[in-house]
Amino acid sequence: MAAGTMTGAESVLRTLSAGGVQVCFANPGTSEMHLVAALDRVPEVRPVLALFEGVASGAADGYARMAGIPAATLLHLGPGLGNAFANLHNAYKARTPMVNVVGDHAVAHAPLNAPLASDIASVARPVSHWYASARDARSAATEAAAALAAARGRGGGIATLVVPADAGWETSAGPAEPLPVAPPAAVPQGAVEAAAQALRGGRRSALLIGGAATRGRALRAAARIAAATGARLLHDTFPARLERGAGVPRAQPLPYLTELATEALAGLEHLVICGTQAPVAFFAYPGRPSRLADPSTAVEVLAGPREDVAGALEALADALGAPADAPVEDAPRPAAPSGGPLDAVAIGAAVAALLPEGAIVVDESVTCSAPIVAATAGAARHDWLTLTGGAIGQGLPAATGAAVACPDRPVLSLEGDGSAMYTIQSLWTQAREGLDVTTVILANRSYAILDFELARVGAEATRGPAADALFGLGRPDLDFVGMAAGMGVPGVRVDDARSFSAALREALAEPGPRLIEAWL
Amino acid sequence: MAAGTMTGAESVLRTLSAGGVQVCFANPGTSEMHLVAALDRVPEVRPVLALFEGVASGAADGYARMAGIPAATLLHLGPGLGNAFANLHNAYKARTPMVNVVGDHAVAHAPLNAPLASDIASVARPVSHWYASARDARSAATEAAAALAAARGRGGGIATLVVPADAGWETSAGPAEPLPVAPPAAVPQGAVEAAAQALRGGRRSALLIGGAATRGRALRAAARIAAATGARLLHDTFPARLERGAGVPRAQPLPYLTELATEALAGLEHLVICGTQAPVAFFAYPGRPSRLADPSTAVEVLAGPREDVAGALEALADALGAPADAPVEDAPRPAAPSGGPLDAVAIGAAVAALLPEGAIVVDESVTCSAPIVAATAGAARHDWLTLTGGAIGQGLPAATGAAVACPDRPVLSLEGDGSAMYTIQSLWTQAREGLDVTTVILANRSYAILDFELARVGAEATRGPAADALFGLGRPDLDFVGMAAGMGVPGVRVDDARSFSAALREALAEPGPRLIEAWL
Repeated sequence: MAAGTMTGAESVLRTLSAGGVQVCFANPGTSEMHLVAALDRVPEVRPVLALFEGVASGAADGYARMAGIPAATLLHLGPGLGNAFANLHNAYKARTPMVNVVGDHAVAHAPLNAPLASDIASVARPVSHWYASARDARSAATEAAAALAAARGRGGGIATLVVPADAGWETSAGPAEPLPVAPPAAVPQGAVEAAAQALRGGRRSALLIGGAATRGRALRAAARIAAATGARLLHDTFPARLERGAGVPRAQPLPYLTELATEALAGLEHLVICGTQAPVAFFAYPGRPSRLADPSTAVEVLAGPREDVAGALEALADALGAPADAPVEDAPRPAAPSGGPLDAVAIGAAVAALLPEGAIVVDESVTCSAPIVAATAGAARHDWLTLTGGAIGQGLPAATGAAVACPDRPVLSLEGDGSAMYTIQSLWTQAREGLDVTTVILANRSYAILDFELARVGAEATRGPAADALFGLGRPDLDFVGMAAGMGVPGVRVDDARSFSAALREALAEPGPRLIEAWL
Repeated sequence: MAAGTMTGAESVLRTLSAGGVQVCFANPGTSEMHLVAALDRVPEVRPVLALFEGVASGAADGYARMAGIPAATLLHLGPGLGNAFANLHNAYKARTPMVNVVGDHAVAHAPLNAPLASDIASVARPVSHWYASARDARSAATEAAAALAAARGRGGGIATLVVPADAGWETSAGPAEPLPVAPPAAVPQGAVEAAAQALRGGRRSALLIGGAATRGRALRAAARIAAATGARLLHDTFPARLERGAGVPRAQPLPYLTELATEALAGLEHLVICGTQAPVAFFAYPGRPSRLADPSTAVEVLAGPREDVAGALEALADALGAPADAPVEDAPRPAAPSGGPLDAVAIGAAVAALLPEGAIVVDESVTCSAPIVAATAGAARHDWLTLTGGAIGQGLPAATGAAVACPDRPVLSLEGDGSAMYTIQSLWTQAREGLDVTTVILANRSYAILDFELARVGAEATRGPAADALFGLGRPDLDFVGMAAGMGVPGVRVDDARSFSAALREALAEPGPRLIEAWL
């Protein structure tokens, strides 16, 4: 097709492709048919079908966290975006680069209140750092270039571009040139000096790292600073991508529970924020603080989420005269349990022992997470992806996307049974694409965290059958092995530690998706 | 608990209960714990757990369509509302009465950008006829009374009330009195006279009924008018609740396809709109009209969706001197097929033959729907619920809610395989609650409608592997019987008409949920 007869849809897709987009996680409908046709003309962009839009958005999140470049999603009007919303929220909080392409009614059709007409902008805005609706086929490619630049620039973010059906089917002016991508903003020299001042002199201090600071150059610079000053190295409770394991500098997680987090931060004279924000409680509780740092602690922001935290940490390390490399003391690696009951500690030990070098772990194990995190500090080097926005149902999709991004790295998906059910359709995409994902369902047959939280908010006095009904996942028990088989993923249920170790060893050794239902 | 120490959460729930709410479809989180505790203090409201929020919102839609009173939903902040969005969209288009109770962070916590903080109002507005966020525990009950009045009044609608955690846990002033419920507005006498004028004199005319006009008094009055004037009786393509079958006046569906719909409406001198809006195409297509009525047809609005269409139709029938009762000529009822291949026609015949009197049919069978609708016009009297907003994934949840509303009526859920996967978690709620729902999965292993629509929008020229990947549900095939068993619902796969008839007969005879995977 010559440029003069290229559709708007094809011009959008070619623009995204020219700007580096290689994968489109899609669940299209009629209003996106010209975008589907464009995918057949632009084979550089790989379409990956999701059977539910929350799988598409969560996969795009997991993909970009690992690939470092945005994926596109292809979604069907307001309701498709609505289905994608929860995992877009998680990606928004992680500042994952992503371009959502959302179809809409033809411009003249939109005001007529057809069944699928809705206010897409209103749904999009809470989860979009950038938003536009293309006016017509001639401007759609230019909007796509702007969307991609917004997704990639200044530390990354979610760009949502609505493409009305006629902007897709009419004739375009051809693809648009990619726009320059703005690098993360440099922090002012004064911020580096203030942080250096705070950390000098042996006072009790800590660095809190998040965003881009939990891996690579930034993490190594943070470790140099900690080694030179004695400052503690803490990371956000829910990092987007944490590098850890053997040979990697170690940071301690800021605990989830308000009381443990305030304890971890108690008595600090200085807290230096690196790539994230000052720590706040996940939820408010009656009589407990929302801000976690002690009021007497001086909080210095070295770099926020959109700033060049790696550069700032390196400048700070140099300013403090830190050694060029900090020594890394590996945590002990437990042995895989060969007997005993199956619980989170046993699972953590098995994972620590068996995780292959270079694995990617996606952790949505909720109440089981803390013991597993503790046990795996000494595992072989790996990346650890967590639930950045608190909207459960992110784990299975993110694992799916991470596996698309890194076909040569095994993915381990640690998933609560309650959380798994939000986006269980992910398993089918894993089967279709032959992705090397091992899913471990931590099946305690309850929303265990809610029972725990009921007491913490002071509402346990009236606990009765309604809470039982709403917190329990029994009556009937879920059979994840059966559901996985129904979507083409082989699985096994285990209920003791020895069997779990054996099943995990086997699943990690085999290519393609596997599921282990760990019956706790 | 004395009123003086009643929490805001309990005051909200008691207010809703006093106003008639009996069921709450829930998927709560930490910010809703005091609302859960309140459910244990207010046993008049039955909690029904959904494993995904789209099941809760779709169930509340199906419930209220059949019960005529709103259910509540209980949802977890912006992401929970996001997951509920698509089925709220369907309910919004149907003007189903519903009260969404959405938890939020405590008021002082909300500005701190905790992981789950988001702009709930922005997500809610496109699917809410009424929206408020309670300021504190003292005003929460008053807001709940206003929400309920908005949901029930003027023909019904979606009310979304955000309850911040501290508005839930602090001390209230007790429940609020229910507010008066505004009846649907009367249409002006002039509208009745104009419609009467249009229909007199034997010119080619039709009534288009929708909203509240597709059943009960309104439908009978419409039939009287048709009998008296010779006007054709058409109903919206996707009615919220259509009464049909033996002994019920028959209306013809306005076809889904633009070309068939314009043909059905061609040559009319007058089209009278009753309880709905003037007909528009579901999607726009290049070179085809968006408005379906012929430009030469005079379109008269007798009553819009918020108006008293039953009263208006009765006044119109009387003004036209129509007989008090229109004769009903039943359509023929096919026999259940005892052999031959399994296709939509055979399924329609089996349903027509076997559907019990008083059954509720939820139809999300998409490309299979038209032949089934045609075959079942002569079935025993039943209600037919359809996808009002075009957001697929509504059928299984709506069937779940309809069964909660009507425990003495069997529910038949006709569901496409692609559509089923959006909210497959519904099956678990059906099993837990022991609901008498027979789910028929029409498994053609594809998004068949998209293949069809690709050509209709003129994009078929480039059809290739990307379209294959995005339209096909094979590689791997889904096993719905296995998935259903994994959620506690027994099922069977059939691939010929005789087996289907037998399986349907058996499933309808047994209480509790069943699934039939009809392999087309």
